[in-house]
Amino acid sequence: MDATRSLQISVIGAGEPPPEAIPLAEEVGRELARRGAIVVTGGLAGIMEAVCRGAKEAGGTTIGILPGTDPRDANPYVDIAICTGIGYARNLAVVRSGRAVIAVSGAFGTLSEIAHALGDGIPVIGLSTWTLSRNGSVDTSIEVASNPADAVDRAFRAAESRDYAAVAARGEFR
Amino acid sequence: MDATRSLQISVIGAGEPPPEAIPLAEEVGRELARRGAIVVTGGLAGIMEAVCRGAKEAGGTTIGILPGTDPRDANPYVDIAICTGIGYARNLAVVRSGRAVIAVSGAFGTLSEIAHALGDGIPVIGLSTWTLSRNGSVDTSIEVASNPADAVDRAFRAAESRDYAAVAARGEFR
Amino acid sequence: MDATRSLQISVIGAGEPPPEAIPLAEEVGRELARRGAIVVTGGLAGIMEAVCRGAKEAGGTTIGILPGTDPRDANPYVDIAICTGIGYARNLAVVRSGRAVIAVSGAFGTLSEIAHALGDGIPVIGLSTWTLSRNGSVDTSIEVASNPADAVDRAFRAAESRDYAAVAARGEFR
Amino acid sequence: MDATRSLQISVIGAGEPPPEAIPLAEEVGRELARRGAIVVTGGLAGIMEAVCRGAKEAGGTTIGILPGTDPRDANPYVDIAICTGIGYARNLAVVRSGRAVIAVSGAFGTLSEIAHALGDGIPVIGLSTWTLSRNGSVDTSIEVASNPADAVDRAFRAAESRDYAAVAARGEFR
Repeated sequence: MDATRSLQISVIGAGEPPPEAIPLAEEVGRELARRGAIVVTGGLAGIMEAVCRGAKEAGGTTIGILPGTDPRDANPYVDIAICTGIGYARNLAVVRSGRAVIAVSGAFGTLSEIAHALGDGIPVIGLSTWTLSRNGSVDTSIEVASNPADAVDRAFRAAESRDYAAVAARGEFR
Repeated sequence: MDATRSLQISVIGAGEPPPEAIPLAEEVGRELARRGAIVVTGGLAGIMEAVCRGAKEAGGTTIGILPGTDPRDANPYVDIAICTGIGYARNLAVVRSGRAVIAVSGAFGTLSEIAHALGDGIPVIGLSTWTLSRNGSVDTSIEVASNPADAVDRAFRAAESRDYAAVAARGEFR
Repeated sequence: MDATRSLQISVIGAGEPPPEAIPLAEEVGRELARRGAIVVTGGLAGIMEAVCRGAKEAGGTTIGILPGTDPRDANPYVDIAICTGIGYARNLAVVRSGRAVIAVSGAFGTLSEIAHALGDGIPVIGLSTWTLSRNGSVDTSIEVASNPADAVDRAFRAAESRDYAAVAARGEFR
Repeated sequence: MDATRSLQISVIGAGEPPPEAIPLAEEVGRELARRGAIVVTGGLAGIMEAVCRGAKEAGGTTIGILPGTDPRDANPYVDIAICTGIGYARNLAVVRSGRAVIAVSGAFGTLSEIAHALGDGIPVIGLSTWTLSRNGSVDTSIEVASNPADAVDRAFRAAESRDYAAVAARGEFR
């Protein structure tokens, strides 16, 4: 990756979240912007809008990767709208465009994004989000954060240690 | 849907599953074929191959929706190979092409398929697969089956009661 | 590819074609089915429906790879409905799922499919379809057929000589 | 669309273009940046790299929508890398993310992008690119530009008059 390119961090979460998750997402956005990261989201309402609003308050840059083809679907805090027209398949592009992913709360769409990220070896930091279990024991792949600043700290650390070469060697489609 | 079209049921699971899951998948395939369903899978190895092998043993028809562009990637029990070339975004097409989904065991790819299915209102029957929790309480959206025949029973019942009109009214991309 | 898998040929064309193209598509469908090929289409109306109707008249098998998520969008002559939910990005899956492609008439969607096929090294046979020019000289990548039987003849010959290994060696994504 | 969001213009063209097309693409990039547009491309080499280089020389912002999952695939002049992992299906996102599209030279991938854009009602300005014919008469949907500055002029005019509401009313997937 070009040394001068800014770090991109993806933030995922539902379009209709519980009200108490909104300020968490705003603070994640503010903190990411303060630390110079570009914020990547799905571009719509709810958590996606809250994190973009927070990032813009702190002078950051926001990307919205939309499911549809109309940029007017993007929330008003999106600087750059990517119109995919591929529906929820855009969820994969959202997580893959971040060097780490922060999940705030979340419904099934968020769960699909968490799963795609973990399957691709992209670090996922969770804030009041899903807990996964397999065969009766909890899966610890999601790194649990205690608050927005902690989530951003963990995301930066995970992003810095991410090894793209290892993922490429593993192959993408198996 | 055309009244004469055969029922399609999707079966999902990992390419490198635990050995004990293989006979479960084979039996799911056999039972689906015996009952006249067309079996839809991701077309590759592991659970995908086992369910196709079972279905072919019982004289059924199998579809493999592949991540890549080469039909030779399909396991030898796939009758019809769909080459998408869109990578893991094909996971969405796998679950959407079934009127119900049976998950056998499974890794993160399977979890993404479960999440996409539940998000789209497609019934998911689980056999030794993921357990989901949110906010400390178990999410019961996955219907748990006790054995392959039970999974197929539940999938048929869920498929028959599935209401496409309700999903369409809800809108796809919001 | 498994030696026992049936040959799949894709047929592409517009949803609202000129009336004179309909009988051409029907005859292409009939001839493909008579010769044992499975017919792959985009599953909707117009040329897609005409070719499926022709194939079913001759006892063939038809696949419809749909842009949306509702199998009821498929025309009544589709045996197997693949619901992608990725919109027009499904055009790539339509051409990639055939060992050769026959284009009958066609609007811009068909042109995109022709371009994706040629870019992927998939043979394209044209019947009253687009003519392409670059730098003032006609591009001859589309093999022009004089009638439906000729189109099917050419598609079978092209499919038999298609070299998947060469495409794979070239790499997919650069 | 938010009134404060910058205009996005997509530039398409081959990864291995004829050498004489490179300075055309660079000048398109410079001119777009001078006029304040954000430049959207497929993010790889050739025309995509030349237009990004030109835009950066003039202080602009560049987006690369990549086919793969590794941001290091982006050329060094890409500011923001969108990693889709959906292969050439990303071509649709490239054209849809611009309010107008400028095609410089181009191979089959570019032709697919032109076709998708025209099918979606997105204006396409051509500079030494494909000529299309149907039924023996030239299709004039591509607006022909005589030089880079003229291409950018035409793209700005087309972008300003683009009517998203009309496209939405027509429906996306039929």
